[in-house]
Amino acid sequence: MSVTFEDIEAAARRLSNNAVETPLIESPALNEQVGLRVLIKPETLQRVGAFKFRGAYNRLVQLSAEERTRGVVAFSSGNHAQGVALAARLLGIPAVIVMPDDAPSVKVEATKGYGAEVRFYNRLTGRTREAIAAELASERGAVVVPAFDDPHIIAGQGTVGLELVRQAEALGVELGCVVAPISGGGLISGIATAVKALSPDTAIVGVEPAGFDDTLQSLQKGERVTVKPSGRSLCDALESPFPGEITFPIMQKHVADVATVTDAEVAEAMRYAFATLKLVVEPGGSVGLAALLAGKVNTFGGSSVGLVLSGGNVDPDLFGRVVRGAI
Amino acid sequence: MSVTFEDIEAAARRLSNNAVETPLIESPALNEQVGLRVLIKPETLQRVGAFKFRGAYNRLVQLSAEERTRGVVAFSSGNHAQGVALAARLLGIPAVIVMPDDAPSVKVEATKGYGAEVRFYNRLTGRTREAIAAELASERGAVVVPAFDDPHIIAGQGTVGLELVRQAEALGVELGCVVAPISGGGLISGIATAVKALSPDTAIVGVEPAGFDDTLQSLQKGERVTVKPSGRSLCDALESPFPGEITFPIMQKHVADVATVTDAEVAEAMRYAFATLKLVVEPGGSVGLAALLAGKVNTFGGSSVGLVLSGGNVDPDLFGRVVRGAI
Repeated sequence: MSVTFEDIEAAARRLSNNAVETPLIESPALNEQVGLRVLIKPETLQRVGAFKFRGAYNRLVQLSAEERTRGVVAFSSGNHAQGVALAARLLGIPAVIVMPDDAPSVKVEATKGYGAEVRFYNRLTGRTREAIAAELASERGAVVVPAFDDPHIIAGQGTVGLELVRQAEALGVELGCVVAPISGGGLISGIATAVKALSPDTAIVGVEPAGFDDTLQSLQKGERVTVKPSGRSLCDALESPFPGEITFPIMQKHVADVATVTDAEVAEAMRYAFATLKLVVEPGGSVGLAALLAGKVNTFGGSSVGLVLSGGNVDPDLFGRVVRGAI
Repeated sequence: MSVTFEDIEAAARRLSNNAVETPLIESPALNEQVGLRVLIKPETLQRVGAFKFRGAYNRLVQLSAEERTRGVVAFSSGNHAQGVALAARLLGIPAVIVMPDDAPSVKVEATKGYGAEVRFYNRLTGRTREAIAAELASERGAVVVPAFDDPHIIAGQGTVGLELVRQAEALGVELGCVVAPISGGGLISGIATAVKALSPDTAIVGVEPAGFDDTLQSLQKGERVTVKPSGRSLCDALESPFPGEITFPIMQKHVADVATVTDAEVAEAMRYAFATLKLVVEPGGSVGLAALLAGKVNTFGGSSVGLVLSGGNVDPDLFGRVVRGAI
């Protein structure tokens, strides 16, 4: 079960007029700072403030009439939750989202705002979110919508890569590499599938938060590794402890390098995005920029970079502390 | 001495490859909220974080070799300062900027960062900035670069309108109105000249901060009025107490309506831009959005709005206070 370029093209057709085709943004100041031409793909400007709407919509729109009636269940720390909640609302599908009780309140409120029912679980004690979601799904006959390990989800996220390459081509730019965050691998797997089909010489570079480098370790070992993090990351959206079953082989095939960034580097990138790019980017959405600013991106000799800023859903208090340098 | 559409087209040619052609951004959430199709022109993404680079570059690039050697002088609370400073750096021209000693430090630091010399003055006591700038100019034989009342500056700012109409046309949208902030009137005069040439039925709507509604009062009275504000506005970029000599007749001809917004409405718009649009917008840059969210924009029956977010240079402390609701 994998994902083809044709799956991504089909997803793009489904998303047309439903998702935002996010623009490419270029900042002469950033280009000068890093000595590269950086084409920014701000998925912060996507519906729900993150790329997750793409995959969720592509999954839900393919449900049968009967499945739609029974509804959907998802578990997520926040952005997938919002993506599923909004896609469900647009399609008239009941949705229950299982969220950790320490999820950023901005993400919880937004999920509720899109009309979804929210059930909380505790990350450290009690039943797992998988168990809770499975029980809800079985009670209601609802479909579980995975956050990343699903071909339709991956194909939906892949439309980011499709747009990025085509928009870069329209500017006459052949991308040396594309940089994207990695959590479970849904985004980068989809992007890689699209980019490699259209521009085989473009390198795919992933970025993980320090302590959650499960994909880097898995790629080095040649098999899926689960990390046991000693603490939390600032990047609430990137805390998956293992790569997906479907996403891992795609990443093995296509991901040329993985960088890791510290919380301090992420905060610095968020401040840079605020002060220079004038974009609101959440911690997990900033890891690619963080790696670039820290000189940690291997561009494989290329001089132009496609940089995915994957989301912008961040609590105002946290954002305020970051931009004034308290974090 | 006025500004023609051809002046704006010429400015666009000079700015090509020097200024950023900012994208149009659309937010389904905002459209839904206001019941209109809103095409956002985020000049926050322009070089120096505000449209001011356009006018400054268009002015400076037309200086003679001899004038360039003698340098330029400008006075500004911040964004024009940065625009002149960066344009001067790019063109190898020495620049001195006269700034109020209470200008946002982010604007002062950026101006210095672009290599300009900064001289401070006090808004309330001592010599006026005009006097200081005139003396500096006379000492050095330097050219004074006005913030708004100059045909080349107005033509440069007008490229915002040129791009906006053409980008909207590419989407198949005929704009019912274009909404832009008014301080001295440079931006809206330029925009109006471009928009009215390309799309005569599009209404031009200005927005001023409460207490600094000199243009509204002047338009009502049919002559330039100077306001005596009782206090400051949150919108440090929009505190001009009178419309320009050159800009006023252009505004008389083209501006169909002027709305005024309170500091509270501006803060609300900044929070909305942060939370929903994921854009960093400074107070003065937010007035159009503020008016739109407050239902104060007369769209003259149109269902689509071009909304100019004119700048994003805001001190991190202030931004943090605004987004967490303390202002």
